[in-house]
Amino acid sequence: MLSPVRAGTPVEALVDDRAWLQAMLDAETALARAQARMGLVPPAAAAAITEAGQADAFDLRGLAEAARGAANPVVAVVQALTASVAGRDPDAAHYVHRGSTSQDILDTAAMLVVRRALTFVLHCLEETAGSLAKIAEEHRETPAAGRTLTQHAVPTTFGLKAATWLQGVLDAHQRVTSLLLGGLPVELGGAAGTLAGYLEYARVDAPSLATDVTGYVETLFRAYADELELAVPAAPWHTVRTPLADVAAVLTHTTGVLGKLAVDVQSLSRTEVGEVTEPVAPGRGVSSAMPQKVNPVLSTLIRSAASQVPLLAASVAQNLVAEDERPAGAWHAEWVPLREALRLTGGAAHTAVELAAGLSVRAGRMRENLASTGALIVSERLAAHLAPVLGKAAAKATVAHASLRSAAGAGTLAELLGDVPDVAARFSLSELLELTDPAQYTGAATALVDRVLERARQVLPGG
Amino acid sequence: MLSPVRAGTPVEALVDDRAWLQAMLDAETALARAQARMGLVPPAAAAAITEAGQADAFDLRGLAEAARGAANPVVAVVQALTASVAGRDPDAAHYVHRGSTSQDILDTAAMLVVRRALTFVLHCLEETAGSLAKIAEEHRETPAAGRTLTQHAVPTTFGLKAATWLQGVLDAHQRVTSLLLGGLPVELGGAAGTLAGYLEYARVDAPSLATDVTGYVETLFRAYADELELAVPAAPWHTVRTPLADVAAVLTHTTGVLGKLAVDVQSLSRTEVGEVTEPVAPGRGVSSAMPQKVNPVLSTLIRSAASQVPLLAASVAQNLVAEDERPAGAWHAEWVPLREALRLTGGAAHTAVELAAGLSVRAGRMRENLASTGALIVSERLAAHLAPVLGKAAAKATVAHASLRSAAGAGTLAELLGDVPDVAARFSLSELLELTDPAQYTGAATALVDRVLERARQVLPGG
Amino acid sequence: MLSPVRAGTPVEALVDDRAWLQAMLDAETALARAQARMGLVPPAAAAAITEAGQADAFDLRGLAEAARGAANPVVAVVQALTASVAGRDPDAAHYVHRGSTSQDILDTAAMLVVRRALTFVLHCLEETAGSLAKIAEEHRETPAAGRTLTQHAVPTTFGLKAATWLQGVLDAHQRVTSLLLGGLPVELGGAAGTLAGYLEYARVDAPSLATDVTGYVETLFRAYADELELAVPAAPWHTVRTPLADVAAVLTHTTGVLGKLAVDVQSLSRTEVGEVTEPVAPGRGVSSAMPQKVNPVLSTLIRSAASQVPLLAASVAQNLVAEDERPAGAWHAEWVPLREALRLTGGAAHTAVELAAGLSVRAGRMRENLASTGALIVSERLAAHLAPVLGKAAAKATVAHASLRSAAGAGTLAELLGDVPDVAARFSLSELLELTDPAQYTGAATALVDRVLERARQVLPGG
Amino acid sequence: MLSPVRAGTPVEALVDDRAWLQAMLDAETALARAQARMGLVPPAAAAAITEAGQADAFDLRGLAEAARGAANPVVAVVQALTASVAGRDPDAAHYVHRGSTSQDILDTAAMLVVRRALTFVLHCLEETAGSLAKIAEEHRETPAAGRTLTQHAVPTTFGLKAATWLQGVLDAHQRVTSLLLGGLPVELGGAAGTLAGYLEYARVDAPSLATDVTGYVETLFRAYADELELAVPAAPWHTVRTPLADVAAVLTHTTGVLGKLAVDVQSLSRTEVGEVTEPVAPGRGVSSAMPQKVNPVLSTLIRSAASQVPLLAASVAQNLVAEDERPAGAWHAEWVPLREALRLTGGAAHTAVELAAGLSVRAGRMRENLASTGALIVSERLAAHLAPVLGKAAAKATVAHASLRSAAGAGTLAELLGDVPDVAARFSLSELLELTDPAQYTGAATALVDRVLERARQVLPGG
Repeated sequence: MLSPVRAGTPVEALVDDRAWLQAMLDAETALARAQARMGLVPPAAAAAITEAGQADAFDLRGLAEAARGAANPVVAVVQALTASVAGRDPDAAHYVHRGSTSQDILDTAAMLVVRRALTFVLHCLEETAGSLAKIAEEHRETPAAGRTLTQHAVPTTFGLKAATWLQGVLDAHQRVTSLLLGGLPVELGGAAGTLAGYLEYARVDAPSLATDVTGYVETLFRAYADELELAVPAAPWHTVRTPLADVAAVLTHTTGVLGKLAVDVQSLSRTEVGEVTEPVAPGRGVSSAMPQKVNPVLSTLIRSAASQVPLLAASVAQNLVAEDERPAGAWHAEWVPLREALRLTGGAAHTAVELAAGLSVRAGRMRENLASTGALIVSERLAAHLAPVLGKAAAKATVAHASLRSAAGAGTLAELLGDVPDVAARFSLSELLELTDPAQYTGAATALVDRVLERARQVLPGG
Repeated sequence: MLSPVRAGTPVEALVDDRAWLQAMLDAETALARAQARMGLVPPAAAAAITEAGQADAFDLRGLAEAARGAANPVVAVVQALTASVAGRDPDAAHYVHRGSTSQDILDTAAMLVVRRALTFVLHCLEETAGSLAKIAEEHRETPAAGRTLTQHAVPTTFGLKAATWLQGVLDAHQRVTSLLLGGLPVELGGAAGTLAGYLEYARVDAPSLATDVTGYVETLFRAYADELELAVPAAPWHTVRTPLADVAAVLTHTTGVLGKLAVDVQSLSRTEVGEVTEPVAPGRGVSSAMPQKVNPVLSTLIRSAASQVPLLAASVAQNLVAEDERPAGAWHAEWVPLREALRLTGGAAHTAVELAAGLSVRAGRMRENLASTGALIVSERLAAHLAPVLGKAAAKATVAHASLRSAAGAGTLAELLGDVPDVAARFSLSELLELTDPAQYTGAATALVDRVLERARQVLPGG
Repeated sequence: MLSPVRAGTPVEALVDDRAWLQAMLDAETALARAQARMGLVPPAAAAAITEAGQADAFDLRGLAEAARGAANPVVAVVQALTASVAGRDPDAAHYVHRGSTSQDILDTAAMLVVRRALTFVLHCLEETAGSLAKIAEEHRETPAAGRTLTQHAVPTTFGLKAATWLQGVLDAHQRVTSLLLGGLPVELGGAAGTLAGYLEYARVDAPSLATDVTGYVETLFRAYADELELAVPAAPWHTVRTPLADVAAVLTHTTGVLGKLAVDVQSLSRTEVGEVTEPVAPGRGVSSAMPQKVNPVLSTLIRSAASQVPLLAASVAQNLVAEDERPAGAWHAEWVPLREALRLTGGAAHTAVELAAGLSVRAGRMRENLASTGALIVSERLAAHLAPVLGKAAAKATVAHASLRSAAGAGTLAELLGDVPDVAARFSLSELLELTDPAQYTGAATALVDRVLERARQVLPGG
Repeated sequence: MLSPVRAGTPVEALVDDRAWLQAMLDAETALARAQARMGLVPPAAAAAITEAGQADAFDLRGLAEAARGAANPVVAVVQALTASVAGRDPDAAHYVHRGSTSQDILDTAAMLVVRRALTFVLHCLEETAGSLAKIAEEHRETPAAGRTLTQHAVPTTFGLKAATWLQGVLDAHQRVTSLLLGGLPVELGGAAGTLAGYLEYARVDAPSLATDVTGYVETLFRAYADELELAVPAAPWHTVRTPLADVAAVLTHTTGVLGKLAVDVQSLSRTEVGEVTEPVAPGRGVSSAMPQKVNPVLSTLIRSAASQVPLLAASVAQNLVAEDERPAGAWHAEWVPLREALRLTGGAAHTAVELAAGLSVRAGRMRENLASTGALIVSERLAAHLAPVLGKAAAKATVAHASLRSAAGAGTLAELLGDVPDVAARFSLSELLELTDPAQYTGAATALVDRVLERARQVLPGG
């Protein structure tokens, strides 16, 4: 109710309590299967455990409250899973969570949840990028005012604006992809990161395996990672929280580039600017008091996420400072901000898809706004052309003077410059008119649009 | 499931979606009653609206998803409430949300939720303070090592440690109390903070009232504030977010002082230190791998909250920078971190009650630890007494030298100092023994305990 | 060079290394004088120490580098001060830092630096408030568009906008004042917060004093606080960091309310809006590329501060979680963000004085912008008046329909509504014209301005 | 004075005002040389500009204060540089900052400063890693208590602790390296990111070049990037702040992994634990009050940095939300936190080199601490071995019961278990003694050490 940016969007189901429980169960069942592959667990036991590992069969609320006892939910989940397995196959119950520790399960589950949520985000980024690429292409030559520090600066094209948004989205896409391809490892360390529990059960259950410890470690890591399609870690990362820090950084970046899109849509849809409007939909953008208003709600939602995620991510990343073999608080402080950051990012990405797909562009209004500052917006260009004639400082002064007079109604900038003898000696009025036409001073905007579109084609599927 | 610090604690019900919906409904129904008091709404209509304003009668999930349309939940809530009122009394339906705007309702609801959550926190702080006062009193003379930068420094008493925790809790109590007494105002401004909608309905419904605008404003503010037991604001605060910033600051402070308690409990309950242990309870502190362990889970939970809340609070406070008459994102970014911060603070406060009430103090272990650094811990004292005899620098050097030799097993510090002629000339061995007894060098610890206990008596109810 | 918001402003000298060194020396010399008052230090020694305590006599850079050795600068400062005193009066040198500890000095120095910087901030807030009050008064009836979520909403007055800024500044003024009046205590605890060192020297130097420990503590606290015009603490606060948390909260709030002013100035000075302009000054707002531009640089500087301070403040406040009798890192992590937050706040406040004093208001442009959305901006008002005639839902629909047609050029809203028989039966065209005139729909704006101005008169000196 | 973690370390000179000024001058002079390569600027002019671009020739303080006028320092720097060039060669002065804009220069300068600071950090990480690798190798089999949630959990080896630190440092090394190899692009966009100014001067100065805009863009980007050994961007990134976000993420991660090392050193050097001590040096770790103390100051300094940097980094990253073609505040808010984060990270890395190189390891104390919890620390192992004999639940209960009795002094765990008939039937006392020997239950610790050392050999230069 308080987070409309993600309310009802698909990301909710990917990161809610049920999703985390399922991920913990997936971590437990994959562990049993990996151990079964190695001959450490009977195949039938692994099958029974796998079968029991369905989140819907458990009491979510009860497990959540039981989590207080151990300061993490895994102890209660293991008890419930063991009971459920025992109901099917009492012998199999002995093989639940064999040699394991809470953190192996919860960290691995976190990676699964992250992978699922980021895969959703990635698809959203692709759709958003596709829509932005279309806009950039369509408007690559549409002149518009470039604005810096809130003021008209020099002209640009709306296509370049869209390409700028696209560039950010492609950067995010690249970072999310890179994390999905190898940045999300399974966790496997046992009680204090020595793998002692796993190894000890191997000594009991399959002594031959345990003689080659190095090989055993490698095999166990790989088998577990294969079961879950996660990466193989160099070593347990109970207190080396690089994967979490990487995820946090990517979430900050992703919401940041979407926030850039959002803040521009807002800037451009201000009543007085009116250059873009958000897609309309029944019931959207409605005010409870003012029947005439249509609010830019999609960009508002995205911005609300973009301002929060960097702080949530910082909260996650501060837990890199994790004392001992398992910290008393730093681990436990990761979960809430991680989930909230995933949720806000997923919501923002979903919202960006809608926004980019339906953004309405008003090229006419862009021309009007550009015209409103007359030729002042091209003063930079004039300074460049007049400098060889008048000298750099005099050129600037002449342009500034004529600009002020023009703004005061004394004539067009071209006319006023044409009245300056040294200028008139070099430039005809038609040359001055061309030089002072904002639409003809968009620099390399189209070439830059093409560069970004080329990058998009290389990066996006089916690009 | 991911936030055991508050899972199942009373604060959850005070800030969940249902609680926010009820608070929004309370804001709407109080508005109708306030307007009825002024003759702007028929009493029967206010009664019908009040009767309809029960959260349980609404579809929470549906309202949450509908919130996406307006970027806030109020529009959907007003529609649902209006429909419900209309079902009872079609005429009364016209008086729902009369002259109002989403932000008036949601801001007022936020203040109600905050008041309810902070009232709970206040009670927890009082109980925690009561327990800490008992410990401080009981152990006001129990000697213990004072530790700075992880090292034994000079002796203190365990009572002073407890008094230090108490001092922080009293500071928090004072700040929460001050906020509850006048820091939580109703919001009333209408669409753009001019009260125009309210005033216009008054012009239509009770023209005489609207002639004295100043009086009307004062009366409306008071009537609304009275209905809800909130404060009267100087003016609408749609974009002057002082109340939110104040709440954020208080939550940061409260979890901070509780975090101080928690981190000390952890430091003191390390296996090698063992001076306190957390209260035991069935199933608490259990490890999934290690049957022998009892983990300090209560303090772990509190610390996990204390590290997160300052960042959530910063996220709230950044929204002070709210553009125009209602910002496009800054308002919307307050809700998630506010709720999460309230929830974590409430959970931490509830957990602190348990921790303080059941903390087990091991005075014997304190003496052992104090003894382990021999008389080294009183070197500061010796330097003070030897300086008049030997000079300041020589005193320091003599103590340092004797300390090193004593640590190396050459004898007690008293003996070794007694071997120094200039020292022996002034101090007998028994005087040296007294000077080197850590338990006799606790300074003004008991007087400081008494100062803090006196403050507690003044502050706490029934103190 | 990278922080123009404060470069060259008076706050720099109040918080730079020299200022901190002076504050540490002030803390040391005041301690000697306080002990002298109590008969613990010879008056001549206190005088010699006081005389030596001039920052300019010390090697700042050398002291800064020496701070690495102890992880804080006090050890090196004490050595340098002792040497300097010894040069004047060898006996006096024994009384430097007598019984004290680094944290007593640095914490007390921090409070002095904070007091000095906040006193400057307070003056800036007063000047800013004075300017804003003038604007609010002058423009209390100047009609302007109220904007929510970037869109014209309902009319307001520019005076109410200014009063809203003023309200925030008064809130900040109140919080800064409250902190200056009692929120900044001296620190006095000795090595582990027991006052043992101080007490032990008293036992050596003036045994009668030390017999009444309670009285001694009270007297020492008061004497020290009196010397420095700081508050008396309940107990040492080495690890109860309430004063720092309070300062952090006030800095966040102050920059937040100034940031609100800044973001509005930016919103209103956008090229297309043009309702205010920042004060011009030679060389200000200059672009390196575009001669015609005048950038709103003052508000840009303020915003840059407002976005940073909440995070710096959170960084300070996280150190509430301070383990043991002195934490190994949490104390040391306060200084950089505290100073930076003070500096940015001081710079922002100084910049706000300039901005508010010279803000140029263009009432004509406000009327034009208000007119640009025709009578749409008063649709809320119309809905209120038509509801009794047409019913609430039909009124909204009728207004919405007429609004859309009017926006499409079919006539003024008054005319189109006059064409609706049920409306015409009740309202004359002149009544409809009045109802649709934005300038006549500013609600209680002027009454609200008066409320805020009244508050300003009560709060501000000479108000 | 307030930041001892970096006071006097080499990073200070890499990021101070002079370094930033030099980087801005480097950006300006490289631009002239790049344009000269393309025939847009006379070689002599480029040479004169390059010659003038020495920071020491400028008035740092004056430039810093002048930065207030434009809200950034570049305008003043360009004026000063132009004047200096004009003094050498008046014609060359026309070619200073030709076609450029403040942000191109300052962003490029930021990348140069970052590259220089990160190169220093990289070297520090390599040295630290080298030292940690040595410790890991030397102590790969040294048994030590593994601790989770402050309590002894299961045994580990000290080598694995060191390897865990090393793993984090290698992760940081990898991220810093990756950023240095391609993540730091030049900025080149001109006033509004269209390159219009550059292109216009090309049209004036070398019209043939300007006909192939696409080629011109590529050539200009490459020439500029080559001059500075920075990367070629896809497009201007004035408002696509990916490079800054990447830097911020890397700084957070780097200080985080160093903070992990620091917090462990502190945990292990507590008086009661005493397993490691920091390297001693004259004047280091000194207390102003307590002559006997040696404080772990290096780790304290590192921790103070590690807690601050994530928030500074979040402050940087929030500026991803940059409106328009140049934001009014978001750009300006990057500089202070970026510099401070670089400075703290550089200081922490430098300090880590000292800490790792001189860390003193006390294997004897490790054995004593391990022994202090008797065989309780191997209860996990016993549970694994007894489960096949007694069943899982009964095994846990038997171990727990015997553990409690052993702790109460009833005998060794081996003896008490040997008294259980079912156990005795399967295990001899000597087997039980081996099973209960902590030093023989370090799992795969040595194999894990080897995995991390192997990674170090691959990553580190000369590894």
